Amino acid sequence: MPGSEFTLIDRYFAAHELRRSDVMLGIGDDGALLAPPSGQQLVVTIDTLVAGVHFFAAADPEGIGHKALAVNLSDLAAMGATPAWVALALTLPEADDVWLEAFCRGLFALADRHGVQLIGGDTTHGPVTVITLQAQGFVPPGLALRRDGAKPGDSVYVTGTLGDAGLALAVALGRVEGVGSYQNYLQMRLERPEPRIAQGRALREMANAAIDLSDGLAQDLGHILERSKAGARLEVDRLPLSPALLACLDQHAAITTALTSGDDYELCFTVPPERVERLEHLAMRWDCRCTRIGVITAEPGLQLFRADGSVFRLDRSGYDHFA
Amino acid sequence: MPGSEFTLIDRYFAAHELRRSDVMLGIGDDGALLAPPSGQQLVVTIDTLVAGVHFFAAADPEGIGHKALAVNLSDLAAMGATPAWVALALTLPEADDVWLEAFCRGLFALADRHGVQLIGGDTTHGPVTVITLQAQGFVPPGLALRRDGAKPGDSVYVTGTLGDAGLALAVALGRVEGVGSYQNYLQMRLERPEPRIAQGRALREMANAAIDLSDGLAQDLGHILERSKAGARLEVDRLPLSPALLACLDQHAAITTALTSGDDYELCFTVPPERVERLEHLAMRWDCRCTRIGVITAEPGLQLFRADGSVFRLDRSGYDHFA
Repeated sequence: MPGSEFTLIDRYFAAHELRRSDVMLGIGDDGALLAPPSGQQLVVTIDTLVAGVHFFAAADPEGIGHKALAVNLSDLAAMGATPAWVALALTLPEADDVWLEAFCRGLFALADRHGVQLIGGDTTHGPVTVITLQAQGFVPPGLALRRDGAKPGDSVYVTGTLGDAGLALAVALGRVEGVGSYQNYLQMRLERPEPRIAQGRALREMANAAIDLSDGLAQDLGHILERSKAGARLEVDRLPLSPALLACLDQHAAITTALTSGDDYELCFTVPPERVERLEHLAMRWDCRCTRIGVITAEPGLQLFRADGSVFRLDRSGYDHFA
Repeated sequence: MPGSEFTLIDRYFAAHELRRSDVMLGIGDDGALLAPPSGQQLVVTIDTLVAGVHFFAAADPEGIGHKALAVNLSDLAAMGATPAWVALALTLPEADDVWLEAFCRGLFALADRHGVQLIGGDTTHGPVTVITLQAQGFVPPGLALRRDGAKPGDSVYVTGTLGDAGLALAVALGRVEGVGSYQNYLQMRLERPEPRIAQGRALREMANAAIDLSDGLAQDLGHILERSKAGARLEVDRLPLSPALLACLDQHAAITTALTSGDDYELCFTVPPERVERLEHLAMRWDCRCTRIGVITAEPGLQLFRADGSVFRLDRSGYDHFA
């Protein structure tokens, strides 16, 4: 990595204390030197957040640091991986000490909680803040959760509640008003998503397919269906909605938001009939909800129904970066 | 990784043919699934190129694709690693088919030559083109080249010639004129650096320390000296200069450029006395020059001398992103 930014990197990143025994050489050489555990497979993810696109440029930098890592760890969770290492590429308009300190606080607080070490980085100058994080984790051979394993008859589940981050974004953009006492809750759901690492690991021998929800349930479940060459029937009245969502939106808008808004970073996964009981027993010990919302079908496509059997019409899809 | 950009990623990146047997799952899931070779260590690098900072926004996209990968592979070379996998985070102002096709052509041509597979990516929208590549390679335990191993008495070597990319940049910025027939050569040296992978591998059991030259010899060798708690004496008349550099600059300017200009992506390394003969024998088979330019000293600091023993005074240092 170019050496000229080393003052920055040294000061803010290399100083952090967490040291894993499988990191032979971290920040400060041309590359990191790592000893992967023998007999495990590696899961590698990379994700970028751009100021003004994925977060407000003026947003709390501690939250940005948290979220930049959280979206990567969420990808690892969706693969059933145990997180280990992360590398950071940071493009900044200026070397702002206050911003960097807060960014690191958010990043490292989450990293420490999951035993993740920052093993390298590249800090560059540019006209806009761009944060790329690349995370790696381990999974036993053959046990990674994939998108292509869903089978007709599988139950479809999601963790947590859906649509909160989407509502928070609508509030921030002035499109929704009057959320009152839910303001803080919603903002936390948008800015501090919790990657479902423990749930992903628990699903290794349980789920046939999994994905994390970054672009909205309808679109992300669509990726599972496409890769698995299957369809799904969802009962939209089963979608897990928070008290905040139910209080601030009418029922149709709440369901639409839960189906289409992004940034939830919950897991969506499918479980074969013979493991449903074990899954539901297991999930009782989770620190988040786990809700059965439908079933995988042989017939392709996503079908949405109300509890009374009528069709639910969805009039918009997830956010597309190049729409 | 967010799914919304999948059309882009699928079309340009996933379609490429090279498939390594250690990639269980490449582009198209939440993460890549990889089987690292048992008993090897992993080397991980990450590097960012920003339009208008690291390359001209209007530059040939094929060259940009080449260089974005080359600077990462150069880091792997400097660690003595054999490259294997690369992940790409691409931020673009618009989805420009012509640009993307040429970018991929440059990226994949170099990747294929080194047996490197693109295992994942994230394409996002942003106001400026930002390219982050993260590359991984393997090295046998204990044999990685590091910056901290230089010992007093080691000979200091560099591969190739120095300063060509710096001169090419000066030409592009209109600061140097009249390069005549050297124009093409210089442009290739700036836009198409060749990562010294074979040399890096050959140095595994030969060099005490190594670094790749991205920010200029004086600054990059300085990182070896700092980490190794040592100094160096260089004889600047030994610096390997191309006919282009010698033809276009006076001697003092040529040496200064070779010492301070960036983007050479050659290797600088140190070899203990007992291995110098073997190294020089080995290097005769290389496809680039290998030049002894000085010696590591116990006394800290970088001392520069002319052939007649007089001190060479250096009046500027390498490029600093936040200078």
